Amino acid sequence: MKTYRDILKWGDKREFELDEGTKKLIIEKLGYSESDFKQKHLAGDHPIQLKKTSDIDAEILKQFTSIVGEENISTLDSERASHSYGKSYPELLALRLEQIPSPPDAVLYPRTDKEIIEILAICQKNKIAITPYGGNSSVTGGLKTPLGGISLDLTKHINQIIEINETDFTTTVQAGMFGPAFEEYLNNYGSKYSCGHFPQSFEYSTVGGWVAAKSAGQASTGYGKIEHMVLSLKIITPTGVIQTKTYPASAQGWDIAQIFIGSEGSLGIITEITMKIRKYRPDNTDYASFIFKDFASAVTAMRICMQKGIGKPHLFRISDPEETEIAFKTKGFEGSFSDKFLNTIGYKSGSRCLMFVAVEGHKDYTKQVISLIKKVVKKSSAFSLGSKPTKKWLNQRYTSAYMREPLMDLGIMTDTLETAVMWSDLLPLWEAVRKYLKKREKTVVMVHISHVYENGANLYFTFLSPMKKGEEQKEYTAYHKGIIETILSHKGSLSHHHGVGRILAPWMEKELGKESLQLMQAIKNHIDPKGIMNPGNTLGLKP
Amino acid sequence: MKTYRDILKWGDKREFELDEGTKKLIIEKLGYSESDFKQKHLAGDHPIQLKKTSDIDAEILKQFTSIVGEENISTLDSERASHSYGKSYPELLALRLEQIPSPPDAVLYPRTDKEIIEILAICQKNKIAITPYGGNSSVTGGLKTPLGGISLDLTKHINQIIEINETDFTTTVQAGMFGPAFEEYLNNYGSKYSCGHFPQSFEYSTVGGWVAAKSAGQASTGYGKIEHMVLSLKIITPTGVIQTKTYPASAQGWDIAQIFIGSEGSLGIITEITMKIRKYRPDNTDYASFIFKDFASAVTAMRICMQKGIGKPHLFRISDPEETEIAFKTKGFEGSFSDKFLNTIGYKSGSRCLMFVAVEGHKDYTKQVISLIKKVVKKSSAFSLGSKPTKKWLNQRYTSAYMREPLMDLGIMTDTLETAVMWSDLLPLWEAVRKYLKKREKTVVMVHISHVYENGANLYFTFLSPMKKGEEQKEYTAYHKGIIETILSHKGSLSHHHGVGRILAPWMEKELGKESLQLMQAIKNHIDPKGIMNPGNTLGLKP
Repeated sequence: MKTYRDILKWGDKREFELDEGTKKLIIEKLGYSESDFKQKHLAGDHPIQLKKTSDIDAEILKQFTSIVGEENISTLDSERASHSYGKSYPELLALRLEQIPSPPDAVLYPRTDKEIIEILAICQKNKIAITPYGGNSSVTGGLKTPLGGISLDLTKHINQIIEINETDFTTTVQAGMFGPAFEEYLNNYGSKYSCGHFPQSFEYSTVGGWVAAKSAGQASTGYGKIEHMVLSLKIITPTGVIQTKTYPASAQGWDIAQIFIGSEGSLGIITEITMKIRKYRPDNTDYASFIFKDFASAVTAMRICMQKGIGKPHLFRISDPEETEIAFKTKGFEGSFSDKFLNTIGYKSGSRCLMFVAVEGHKDYTKQVISLIKKVVKKSSAFSLGSKPTKKWLNQRYTSAYMREPLMDLGIMTDTLETAVMWSDLLPLWEAVRKYLKKREKTVVMVHISHVYENGANLYFTFLSPMKKGEEQKEYTAYHKGIIETILSHKGSLSHHHGVGRILAPWMEKELGKESLQLMQAIKNHIDPKGIMNPGNTLGLKP
Repeated sequence: MKTYRDILKWGDKREFELDEGTKKLIIEKLGYSESDFKQKHLAGDHPIQLKKTSDIDAEILKQFTSIVGEENISTLDSERASHSYGKSYPELLALRLEQIPSPPDAVLYPRTDKEIIEILAICQKNKIAITPYGGNSSVTGGLKTPLGGISLDLTKHINQIIEINETDFTTTVQAGMFGPAFEEYLNNYGSKYSCGHFPQSFEYSTVGGWVAAKSAGQASTGYGKIEHMVLSLKIITPTGVIQTKTYPASAQGWDIAQIFIGSEGSLGIITEITMKIRKYRPDNTDYASFIFKDFASAVTAMRICMQKGIGKPHLFRISDPEETEIAFKTKGFEGSFSDKFLNTIGYKSGSRCLMFVAVEGHKDYTKQVISLIKKVVKKSSAFSLGSKPTKKWLNQRYTSAYMREPLMDLGIMTDTLETAVMWSDLLPLWEAVRKYLKKREKTVVMVHISHVYENGANLYFTFLSPMKKGEEQKEYTAYHKGIIETILSHKGSLSHHHGVGRILAPWMEKELGKESLQLMQAIKNHIDPKGIMNPGNTLGLKP
């Protein structure tokens, strides 16, 4: 029997134990002691027992079964439960509290687009809610099924590469393919390619999920966000199949594909994506890392690099002073000879900031971009740390996501928030959100800039703070609300790459304006007139 | 009294006479003789007299007048006539034939957004068609006013830069500002900037027009099309004002601004644009030009440059063999020692192709991109012609548009068509369209690739062919239809950067598919329920 714990965890071995550096951090900053590390707060280790039984009509279930086959449909509690949640902190907390108020009535694993069309027709006729499901890494409540219905899991069968075109540098891929399988296939194909898209969730997310949630990868500074990579889409909607054309660019009315990128399942099921690919040449990649005396100098240097016309790095990242100090502490650098040396020459703990850079492409290009960046950052008194710190960071780039579950076992509230902001507004926003977060006692706040543009950047906040036992949900909700409102009042976007889902939906009207949200609703009403596509306030849309 | 000729011409001095090279071409290729150069075929030199009087209600006219002031409204025939046409070949032909079947009833020059909102409210109440009007350079019939109503000319008052942000590298500009004034202002502001957007129509087009028609500039390979430059928009629509937020990127549902880029006046009036700006550093720009033995080698070299990860040129252009030979002929290069030398070493007339390259940015960057491009193209046996040909081309880059009117005076049918196509489909499309065009006797067909991407490029066709006197309109319509259908059947887009307007509207359903066009119509119906925004089949939309 599966337990709640089985589904709140990824099942990844990196979740099992915290490294010594992180333990040290928790002891020093959050007031924990060695003995605390044995606790399993809200362990969620009871077997799953859903209070809400599947109320799908037997006749309809039979129809679904005849479409996908018996082995591709389930009404088991464990599968319904695991398809009722994504991986946001409040969702994991609810699972630990063994709350699954509205699971889907059935989980379907369609084998073909044709089957999806047939399933959708039944749902449309009988007004059954349908939620497309990929890698289950949503952190916005986007996979919740508040109106029940069916969860349509594309990962089992709709997961192949359909075509790679080595002349056009494109691939057509099915939505349910996971990141690692996709990248590995491209790496080994023909003259060797890369998808160029590496979100934090890479290991447990699908190409279709990237598109639906308007994702950004860690190399987005060079390759762009997913909306800059997609050339065309196939979307199965309640009112028909939309297949956009594959062109390098066009001017034939507004871009229909862009309406589905970021639609988060609210309009239809994205089944095929034609997107750009790039040459895979890891040996050409050049790296640099720097330390700056303070955050403002690092930000200025980064901005100048992006505006100077020197080419673009692919990975470009700054950790703010607290994140830098925590990196030094947890990686054992704190107190070393080098640490003392840096402090002596003016790169002081609590103020200094790390910058990571990696550039991909032709080897002369990567070398020169790094060299020109070095020239720029030296004017901001950056001290070069060579290529190693960036390479080290890249080697463990997906790990931090897996630390959340052992942290929650310890009763630590932890979440990440991200916002896009213009350069002029970046420092005031950073200060305001930090100040808000720090109102809470014993709270570690790490901030970095990733995803950088000519005109601004993405700020990414991570916090760790001991939960108040018994008030876990209430206090998170209030704290989270304050963060979002601080971001919005300081000119940050509601989201840069996590998406909106249901968690951020309440702010959509304020953020976009009434007229824009009404336009989105009109589009929804046209494509999904019965409101069956991922319903229940996704993106702030009705139903 | 204004004549039809006064409005069919730009009034630009470059329209007055053809250069000797072009005359030579016309004599040799189109069978003209010296004495033919005196003719003025369909001169259109009668005074304008509209058959259709302004049937705007006197009370409504009074309301409009009280909003904009007497000096900013006109019902004069000359102004109504000049606001009833853009600059497409069939429109100019109609003017030469003194056909103006459906001019607007009045032309208004609003002074503020507030006035536009008031005007729109009156139009909405009384169901009066309204057509936003900028630089009048549309080549798609986008400014025609088949349902009469009012033409809203933004160029007189709504033409200022509102803000330049030197930290964010952005400007906010009003829609009616012309290209040259915009660029000059930026060039001289603060640390000196450039808009980076130079369409062929640059000298007679507005920023709002660029956005409405989804334009591309000659530096688009480096800076992107207008949809890649716009950060946010203000649009006044019949159902309210939409002001999108200015972020470097975001993930909060689909991108609302992108719905208005390419909307061609069918949804609302774009009044303000916040867009990227770049450093203006002409001294840093590096140039190269090459000649290739044939078109296929040049295309392959260009594609590899775009996919190799060596940075991007800003201007990147290939002329096909016929365009290359015509350039050589008209510029007096034909028969020179250098011409003979090139022929001797294998770059033969009728097969060889010119490539132009310019790279902007930091001087080390521009130098290296040029140097890496040289390495790539030499593998395709390119012969370097140095920087001069590209510089010369840039110096007269807008001129060819002004030759159309003297050509039409000579009774020459001439038009340009453009399409975006993936690399794999480029050569077959080029061959098929050339073959179709050449079915017509005595027809010069010049093709170039401009606007280049990793995955494909834009092919641009220009043809010159003597008109059949008395059948000018009929024969153009049939010939044009065949070109479009050849493009579409060979996987080219309906448009890359001219837009669709009314001329290409009949192909929209076939091109986009029924479902996509219905989605566009649903958006139109929501924003413009009474169908007053640039009505009459714009983009294939109703009414």
